[in-house]
Amino acid sequence: MNKVGILGLGRFGRFWAKVLSHSYDVYGYNRSVPPEPNCTLVSVEELCRLPVIFICVPMRTVPEILRKISPLLAPGTLIVDTCSVKVEPVRWMNEYLPSEIDILATHPMFGPESAKEGLSGLPIMMHPVRMPFARYEEWARFFRALGLMVVEITPEEHDRQAAMSQALTHMIGRSLSVMGIEETPIGTLWYRKLLAICRQVEKDSPELFLDMQTLNPYAAAMRDSFERSWRSVCASLTDPAQRG
Amino acid sequence: MNKVGILGLGRFGRFWAKVLSHSYDVYGYNRSVPPEPNCTLVSVEELCRLPVIFICVPMRTVPEILRKISPLLAPGTLIVDTCSVKVEPVRWMNEYLPSEIDILATHPMFGPESAKEGLSGLPIMMHPVRMPFARYEEWARFFRALGLMVVEITPEEHDRQAAMSQALTHMIGRSLSVMGIEETPIGTLWYRKLLAICRQVEKDSPELFLDMQTLNPYAAAMRDSFERSWRSVCASLTDPAQRG
Repeated sequence: MNKVGILGLGRFGRFWAKVLSHSYDVYGYNRSVPPEPNCTLVSVEELCRLPVIFICVPMRTVPEILRKISPLLAPGTLIVDTCSVKVEPVRWMNEYLPSEIDILATHPMFGPESAKEGLSGLPIMMHPVRMPFARYEEWARFFRALGLMVVEITPEEHDRQAAMSQALTHMIGRSLSVMGIEETPIGTLWYRKLLAICRQVEKDSPELFLDMQTLNPYAAAMRDSFERSWRSVCASLTDPAQRG
Repeated sequence: MNKVGILGLGRFGRFWAKVLSHSYDVYGYNRSVPPEPNCTLVSVEELCRLPVIFICVPMRTVPEILRKISPLLAPGTLIVDTCSVKVEPVRWMNEYLPSEIDILATHPMFGPESAKEGLSGLPIMMHPVRMPFARYEEWARFFRALGLMVVEITPEEHDRQAAMSQALTHMIGRSLSVMGIEETPIGTLWYRKLLAICRQVEKDSPELFLDMQTLNPYAAAMRDSFERSWRSVCASLTDPAQRG
């Protein structure tokens, strides 16, 4: 079996190790030893000698990590990021990785929770930043074979769409969490969906949330847009002229 | 089979006629003739001679309807409202219906969409405003036999909980609708839930939405609470001191 490495074995990295282990020998590195790594733990130097390395560290630490591993990588290594935002990480990878290193941008739009019922139909964004087409196709084929829906869009298009979907969902989920919404015996099916979103978003780290909101260039406009929409709905409750 | 009447054959009234027809002969009245009434259409005078009448008209028209039917009802008739808010409608029923008329407050927390997969486990709120216990028990038994989860709480408790669940869900759904959120190939499972809420809320009438927000005494505080929570989450994005 071919070997792949995972840098960062947090909640997502450990889950990703399990997914890749279907077809790859998976090795991983993490600063501290994680409880269930789902892969063979190695040093960062050993990891950097693998042909393919997935970056699964918190987004904000990606520049620092790239600077650290960059001198340890052999020419032809493929670096794959899995960040929830794409424009900035792609810029960092282009900036910090030498030209003989291949670069693939991905965003698996799921995690251990949403993949509980299997991977079938779950979306993964892919963009070949700098790599031979055949190598890109190989990974696209692998993801499709897992049942994933491969979405091939640019980092800009990804961030625009992710702001209006993922970042929006997390903003609403966090707000509901701060508000303290709870189970109620009279909860409608739709309220139960809202509660499920809130409980899910609470599971993600505050860092992921913050990065998703502050590193996506389109997230601020999304927040403004929701706030304006909420206020116009509020205004329509007292001013009949504003009712749609 | 025993006979029941439905006053108001809008989207919910027609759905309710179908539900009741499992065990009752259902008669209905509507100002205009509805496309698929799911029951035998009668005049308002005939309807008022039935032993049990469910009120399924828009909430805001309930006082006017009660004034209209009140002189037409025989002693012992049971009037059941199905409004999404409970404190005000109960006050209206107590005020407009003569003392020899029985009153049951209900809120079926579902509709044609959420009941697509069957009624099993869906909640219905019930409160015996003014009626013999045996008659109340008979209806509770019927609803339980349909698979519904009967929730016995006061109108005040209902409105407090409904503001924080149903009215909140509708506020968010309407705001997302105004914002114009759309399908995206990179939508996560959680975003798809949010989109489903938005699409569902769009199906309900603007009147129902407005009544849910303005006739529930706890809805304004819910809206304030969400807005404060949203703003505190936004503030936490720029001010690390506010991060939880």
